[in-house]
Amino acid sequence: MKAHVYVTLKTSVLDPQGQTIQNALRKIGFTGVDGVRQGKYFVLSLAKGLTLEAAKAEVERVAREVLTNPVIEEYTYRIEE
Amino acid sequence: MKAHVYVTLKTSVLDPQGQTIQNALRKIGFTGVDGVRQGKYFVLSLAKGLTLEAAKAEVERVAREVLTNPVIEEYTYRIEE
Repeated sequence: MKAHVYVTLKTSVLDPQGQTIQNALRKIGFTGVDGVRQGKYFVLSLAKGLTLEAAKAEVERVAREVLTNPVIEEYTYRIEE
Repeated sequence: MKAHVYVTLKTSVLDPQGQTIQNALRKIGFTGVDGVRQGKYFVLSLAKGLTLEAAKAEVERVAREVLTNPVIEEYTYRIEE
């Protein structure tokens, strides 16, 4: 079982990295992109024998306590069985 | 329309950041995670009026030419209509 965790800045937080990428895209001629937000993507390989419920609980704790800065970031995840 | 782009290290490439996170997880008592791979996650807001085909072409070019280092990274993406 694997978990895919997506950590992004809260929408209220300015994203200078995303802004820099968007400016670069415009300069080199990409006109189809209006905005860019950058985040982090984690793939967690989960231990064998975990139930789906236990896996969800573990992933949520890991995301909340280790992978995310709750002041400026939020996360979503999905489990791949 | 939005595009979600996931950039990850090729599986043949060592992931020291992922390894560091995994070691930290073990030290603080998370036993349900066997491995961690870290990548980058981009949300592209696409210009209005693009057809689905044009959007895919633009996203693939942006991912290939700007967001990904083809020597060590690979990408997947999905379009959110």
